[in-house]
Amino acid sequence: MTRRDFIQSTSTAYASMMAWGLLKPAPAEAFALPPNGTQDGKARKVIILGAGLAGLATAYELGKLGYDCTLLEARSRSGGRVWTVRGGTKETELGGTGQTCRFEDGLYFNGGAARIPHHHQLTMHYCRELGVPLEIFNGANEAAWLYNDGGTGPLANKRMRIKEYHNDMRGYTSELLAKAFDQSALDQQLTKEDVEKLVDFLKNEGDLNTAKLYKGTNRRGYKIEPGAGPVAGELTDPYGLTDLLHSGFMQPVFYNVGEYTYEQQATLLQPVGGMDAIPKAFEKKLTGKILFNAPVKELRKTETGVRVVYTQNGKPAEITGEFCVCTLPLPVLKNLESDLSGTVKRAADFVPYMKTGKIGLQFKRRFWEEEEGIYGGISRTNMDINQIWYPSFGFMGKKGVLIGYYNFYSRAEAVANLPISGREKLALEQGGKIHPQYTQAFDNSFSLAWHKIPYNEGGWALYDDAIRRKYYAALTEPDGNIYFAGEHTTYLTAWMAGALTSARRTVEAIHARAGQYTKK
Amino acid sequence: MTRRDFIQSTSTAYASMMAWGLLKPAPAEAFALPPNGTQDGKARKVIILGAGLAGLATAYELGKLGYDCTLLEARSRSGGRVWTVRGGTKETELGGTGQTCRFEDGLYFNGGAARIPHHHQLTMHYCRELGVPLEIFNGANEAAWLYNDGGTGPLANKRMRIKEYHNDMRGYTSELLAKAFDQSALDQQLTKEDVEKLVDFLKNEGDLNTAKLYKGTNRRGYKIEPGAGPVAGELTDPYGLTDLLHSGFMQPVFYNVGEYTYEQQATLLQPVGGMDAIPKAFEKKLTGKILFNAPVKELRKTETGVRVVYTQNGKPAEITGEFCVCTLPLPVLKNLESDLSGTVKRAADFVPYMKTGKIGLQFKRRFWEEEEGIYGGISRTNMDINQIWYPSFGFMGKKGVLIGYYNFYSRAEAVANLPISGREKLALEQGGKIHPQYTQAFDNSFSLAWHKIPYNEGGWALYDDAIRRKYYAALTEPDGNIYFAGEHTTYLTAWMAGALTSARRTVEAIHARAGQYTKK
Repeated sequence: MTRRDFIQSTSTAYASMMAWGLLKPAPAEAFALPPNGTQDGKARKVIILGAGLAGLATAYELGKLGYDCTLLEARSRSGGRVWTVRGGTKETELGGTGQTCRFEDGLYFNGGAARIPHHHQLTMHYCRELGVPLEIFNGANEAAWLYNDGGTGPLANKRMRIKEYHNDMRGYTSELLAKAFDQSALDQQLTKEDVEKLVDFLKNEGDLNTAKLYKGTNRRGYKIEPGAGPVAGELTDPYGLTDLLHSGFMQPVFYNVGEYTYEQQATLLQPVGGMDAIPKAFEKKLTGKILFNAPVKELRKTETGVRVVYTQNGKPAEITGEFCVCTLPLPVLKNLESDLSGTVKRAADFVPYMKTGKIGLQFKRRFWEEEEGIYGGISRTNMDINQIWYPSFGFMGKKGVLIGYYNFYSRAEAVANLPISGREKLALEQGGKIHPQYTQAFDNSFSLAWHKIPYNEGGWALYDDAIRRKYYAALTEPDGNIYFAGEHTTYLTAWMAGALTSARRTVEAIHARAGQYTKK
Repeated sequence: MTRRDFIQSTSTAYASMMAWGLLKPAPAEAFALPPNGTQDGKARKVIILGAGLAGLATAYELGKLGYDCTLLEARSRSGGRVWTVRGGTKETELGGTGQTCRFEDGLYFNGGAARIPHHHQLTMHYCRELGVPLEIFNGANEAAWLYNDGGTGPLANKRMRIKEYHNDMRGYTSELLAKAFDQSALDQQLTKEDVEKLVDFLKNEGDLNTAKLYKGTNRRGYKIEPGAGPVAGELTDPYGLTDLLHSGFMQPVFYNVGEYTYEQQATLLQPVGGMDAIPKAFEKKLTGKILFNAPVKELRKTETGVRVVYTQNGKPAEITGEFCVCTLPLPVLKNLESDLSGTVKRAADFVPYMKTGKIGLQFKRRFWEEEEGIYGGISRTNMDINQIWYPSFGFMGKKGVLIGYYNFYSRAEAVANLPISGREKLALEQGGKIHPQYTQAFDNSFSLAWHKIPYNEGGWALYDDAIRRKYYAALTEPDGNIYFAGEHTTYLTAWMAGALTSARRTVEAIHARAGQYTKK
């Protein structure tokens, strides 16, 4: 058995064991593998391509185990799609003109990853282990707006508070179901007593009156708020069910169940001061290990491992190592000169990536807080801006930055194709339909389109079942001594937790393989 | 017309104008009345009883208008029921033994007011005007627990994540309603097209499958989380509808629609560092105006205004003024020697107050975060502890303080009647059924029962329609030169916004009356 054969067989065995569930997936605790990163007293060399979260976590964990890691990072910063835009941030998109952000000190938005689900234990774990302070990200705000532009019917082209839509729909659907029970209309197996319990539930769920009818509720707000002395308050009137059904708010673009979904349900968190606190915390643990401004040019297999050709600050260079962990996003990988296998190359060619963009808009005052009572959360519209995100921090400050659009697919493509000034204009015009204060209060903006950003060229890997069946496996096994990590090698695409769990899996795989060598 | 008659007629007219809606209720902006707090060049004297939020805001706003205010405060601190308990806090309840809080630096809980609804514009306004930084209070956390103790059926005596209950109930009710439409069972006026839209809505709302059946959803969580490589994740199984109906979670004590209600829906906020940041900010604006340790003993009407007998640091004293603003809670007022009218005295005697208590439990580690992914929010149970509140701040710190019970009515009464050590024992035993980590991780506690706390003797005024009809009006009009303020003089009982709006109304009333004098 040649050494190469041996490597192949152990790594395949490892992958199979993982697949069969014989190995536990990476635990959400401190990683405690036995240190074993040396061979004949010398640290094993690992070259990591990309200092995004997957690369950083791989280097951090391999470093603990005694490996000698070098990260090649094309940019002058770490973090990849974990990127906080603040005053001074510069970017030039592919085929675009340069932007320099002019936000005031203390104002920022997260251009990429922007929220941490409470159940992403690995992300939470690294924040804990690295001492990154977290605060709540307000994902679901009942006071934010829905706005259906260009629709017909009485609720089109006007903004509606999410609380109105939510509570009206809960009211009407609860009323209808209670009525179905009254009419003994439902052929099902509930006992009379259980139906009574369920109707009681519906009365609470929909805030029905004693006749089990929905006639509005204070949950949707007041025309006149209750106050002191004689001011008892005056309720608003509910919208009609038919009007709501014609409002357009049930279209997927409004994503009306965002806060129900596993990834977006309460509680969401964010690092205090910006998401880049996470890569910066990793970076502190990797002093001297990251080569910045070092884009990879070639990835080669050698008899003893790998050889990577890159430039640093424009000058050609190369580095060799025993292993390589490639975290490059597939749209970047597909243009890399390499000895990668055909299956990997095909995956890089054919796994599609999300087109997505954001714009940060700085305003002279936080009118959404002062005048509309909106503290964080998301407004949704069918316009190209799709979502407006209000900051969950810095409440009641003088100025503020909100995310004026967060869009996807064709909306993101259309907006990204505008010049920078055109994006700003569109964000202000469309957002201005929801917030008339935009015109007066606007200061400046910074926009980005991930599919046009060098070294990313996409938001995240977009697998459907067919694509995953065809291409995924190639990315989850080593290609010789080259391993792949990053959100695209997981079922947690688009999430930092994906990058981190892929890093742990890769570390386990390399370490298991190195252990085999050592034993031999 | 005597002066007294004139005063009576103008104040009645003012109250009537308010009642008829001819005067706008206090706006949620800076208060901009024309300064007019002087008579013959001398500041008019106003004595304010109680330096809770109503008293503080009254003094602050009257001070801006040129009045000379003195606040008499029984305690050595301001804030009243806006009270943050931290290391060093002392309290002795009526008939109880003294407690001194032993929490570590930086740990605290809000013993009284603990959350600010985003639509309480007046509370938000004062935080803005006084520079009190706010952060999000996480009111609804899908990861928190429901626990029905002593029930029967498969879901009793075990904890269930709120996300499981929510998403299962949404699923089943959506399925049932969709089925009712399928069976053309509902005699109602929706068109076929509208029914289709509604069924689409239900499919999203309940995450129904293509057959419009609820078979579980990833929204309720995973048995195995999705991960890297081959780990696609494995869904949990939903509970059965019948089991859920017998779970007991529909009882009011579980308050299953907390986050739907107007007062508790997202977004809620809290001051950074504790709710007492608000009274402290007012206090800074009232240097020298507050007499601490000065409980009121008598409240008298005089020919020229009012006379108040009090003690300060135990020594008898008295003070006279033109007006008095009495913010004493009714259970305190009813035991005060006074010249108050019979209708006011009857209100003080007969308006009931909430019995309510809290306990802060300090733990050696934040196991609810580390092991259960709970970052803020509320668990609910039918046990005497009723609610467990997890802190929405200081995430991932070493130690932590959670609120081990927040209870009401008979539960609060029963727990309050235990000795301090017995309350702690009960909190640990009952809470330990939800969090087995309690025993190992417990440090120390501090408990309070508002109905036993001197100078409050109750949580908040409890009006039902009959009580309000009978007693409320007497508290919303001046009794001679004595005005009443506080949450009990509003339709926003139990909320800081109630105290604040009552303060503004009182300031307006006094100022309108003083303006009449001046013109005369």
